[in-house]
Amino acid sequence: MVEIDKTRFDRLQEEMERENVDALICRLPENVLYLSDYWAQQGLSLAILPKGEEPILLAPEVEEPYAEKSWADTRIFGWGLVGEDDLFSSWERLLSDIRDEQSLQNSTVGVETSFELVAPPYNVMEPVGVGKPTLNLIEKVFSGGEVVDATGLLEKARSVKTDYEQDKLRVANEVAALGLARFEEEVLPGKTEAQVAAAVEQEIRSKGAGYKGANFARASAEIRTGPGSFETLLFVPSRSERITEGDIVLLELPTVVDGYWSDLTRVTVAGRPTKKQKEIHNLVSKAQQAAIDRMSPGTSWGEVDKAARETIEKGGYGDNFPHITGHGLGLRYHENIPMLYPGADDELESGMVTSVEPGIYIEGWGGIRMEDNILVTEDGPELLSTYDRTL
Amino acid sequence: MVEIDKTRFDRLQEEMERENVDALICRLPENVLYLSDYWAQQGLSLAILPKGEEPILLAPEVEEPYAEKSWADTRIFGWGLVGEDDLFSSWERLLSDIRDEQSLQNSTVGVETSFELVAPPYNVMEPVGVGKPTLNLIEKVFSGGEVVDATGLLEKARSVKTDYEQDKLRVANEVAALGLARFEEEVLPGKTEAQVAAAVEQEIRSKGAGYKGANFARASAEIRTGPGSFETLLFVPSRSERITEGDIVLLELPTVVDGYWSDLTRVTVAGRPTKKQKEIHNLVSKAQQAAIDRMSPGTSWGEVDKAARETIEKGGYGDNFPHITGHGLGLRYHENIPMLYPGADDELESGMVTSVEPGIYIEGWGGIRMEDNILVTEDGPELLSTYDRTL
Repeated sequence: MVEIDKTRFDRLQEEMERENVDALICRLPENVLYLSDYWAQQGLSLAILPKGEEPILLAPEVEEPYAEKSWADTRIFGWGLVGEDDLFSSWERLLSDIRDEQSLQNSTVGVETSFELVAPPYNVMEPVGVGKPTLNLIEKVFSGGEVVDATGLLEKARSVKTDYEQDKLRVANEVAALGLARFEEEVLPGKTEAQVAAAVEQEIRSKGAGYKGANFARASAEIRTGPGSFETLLFVPSRSERITEGDIVLLELPTVVDGYWSDLTRVTVAGRPTKKQKEIHNLVSKAQQAAIDRMSPGTSWGEVDKAARETIEKGGYGDNFPHITGHGLGLRYHENIPMLYPGADDELESGMVTSVEPGIYIEGWGGIRMEDNILVTEDGPELLSTYDRTL
Repeated sequence: MVEIDKTRFDRLQEEMERENVDALICRLPENVLYLSDYWAQQGLSLAILPKGEEPILLAPEVEEPYAEKSWADTRIFGWGLVGEDDLFSSWERLLSDIRDEQSLQNSTVGVETSFELVAPPYNVMEPVGVGKPTLNLIEKVFSGGEVVDATGLLEKARSVKTDYEQDKLRVANEVAALGLARFEEEVLPGKTEAQVAAAVEQEIRSKGAGYKGANFARASAEIRTGPGSFETLLFVPSRSERITEGDIVLLELPTVVDGYWSDLTRVTVAGRPTKKQKEIHNLVSKAQQAAIDRMSPGTSWGEVDKAARETIEKGGYGDNFPHITGHGLGLRYHENIPMLYPGADDELESGMVTSVEPGIYIEGWGGIRMEDNILVTEDGPELLSTYDRTL
């Protein structure tokens, strides 16, 4: 059990105070982790944070060896075997106990009503959303009070990362770098996109477990080769298409280590890069650095986007950078705060983390993007991802 | 574009008729696939099925190359680039058009209110749930009618697999078998659980893309070695623990190919199996076969469970099989229909698919489970997974 992250709770209590929320009840793995420091293996946990108190975690017995290491008051219930109660009965019993212990009978309870895009639990193959069953249960147990949407509150609190969280994000980026190194080895003519993607994922999963005390690591690599890399301006899947000599090969790599995310992109060339490939890579690199250099507390999100966009415009490729410059990340690989897009006038704060990922995409030729994760600090921007950025 | 699966739609129309639902509107990738034959790369698609009509699919432009191959009337919207509408504005516009075209102004619309455990889209790292934003939007567009929960209707319709779906499940099981073969090669003293898991996943992802016309395959392997395999009676993660000579090594393997799932378990021994390991493996194998032999249309779910359970009891391990015998699967790796548990009196129907997965778990010694996927037919049970079941 690690020491509780007091900074995180001070921030949360402040937000709860401002929004008049007496307790938070979270089911989504990303928010359970935020409140309890436990990354749920499956979507069977609940985390409760009464204002001014320490968090309480409900976890199924099978997850006890890991859940009990969280900093929450952890309460275990039987689940999944013949004769055991169903999930909602166990939750109702334990939630009712907590309501009575904490005198929350007439309280305002904040829930995850508006999260739809979510981070998976460790078991990425069976994620959970928050639908009517969970909301109905909470409304039943807290029928004397009010149930309100805490989505905005949670997103805002999460947007500033504490020292503890920053360390976790550094580790996630180090593990991701193992995948970037493997990517460079694997890019050879004749290999399929899916083969290269699978090898990168293998590297991260096999070497990430146990890395600097991490329990679990997974990644989901997507590769595009040749002119098809043009399409990577948005999310596209790895195919059975083969790499040919001279191809641009682009890797998009979200990695999760114990629930903390990294989101990186690198491009390499299968063979010797052409002059044009090098020129465009240099321009993207310059645009990325220009954006990073602007990342200080108080700078508007739009100004950071502008720095990247103007660099690409000046380089003559203004029509070829159609997406935003970056997005928040931390407990999910896309978070809404901050969001680096043209004209955005919200301001960066110390502790915020974003991707910075300008790109140039030319139909029939290909796409080159470079993506790193940056921490905003009073002393200037810090690259959480330190892997080599040259072609 | 493949020919539309008329059997599926006849069945759906029948269920909609029975439940007085005029149209279904689905966002979850598993149900979008069910209605449109398109496995969403991200959770940005909607599928609409008006009663008596063909389905309509809304998909973002970046997914068009795949979405347009669906059997739905596919309508594309811009998403994700600077200056494009946000998702909900595009959906509102297109849904309103459909409401008017199909005269659904005063209709009863069925939605996914109670799905919480969900299947991920192709991008397993960013799944979606159905929360207030989607439900509010649908209620707004269909404010002249009624919005009802179609979760039960969808689960019931999905529980019987058509010939088209059965073929997809056969392919998913063939791809999964590539992973089972790799597992046997990888189990060597000194390797970590995470290393073996990562290699199995790599095999499936790299060889699954393009296999018999499949676009995409992914798996998530979990490995437990030695006495720790006892804990696999429920879901447990792969660790950095190393295999030692003589260990039981258990692999739990969900695999998804173009949105259709296989769920398999195999056990091997690192070295020569002991007499006890062989005896228990034989007993589990007998229990599995006893259950499979009972799987005919009209047999109750409980009777199938009983066949496995009695075999294990007679073998002297009645206290060591604490979980259910099997569960439905198809568009998710756990579906609720059928569910093979003690005393269940619902009946199997031709076309249903379940896992059959008895196991024996002994604390301090280990666990042995064998899991295959069985199709119920009028001519008897068919093993969709045909990989070798010997130790």
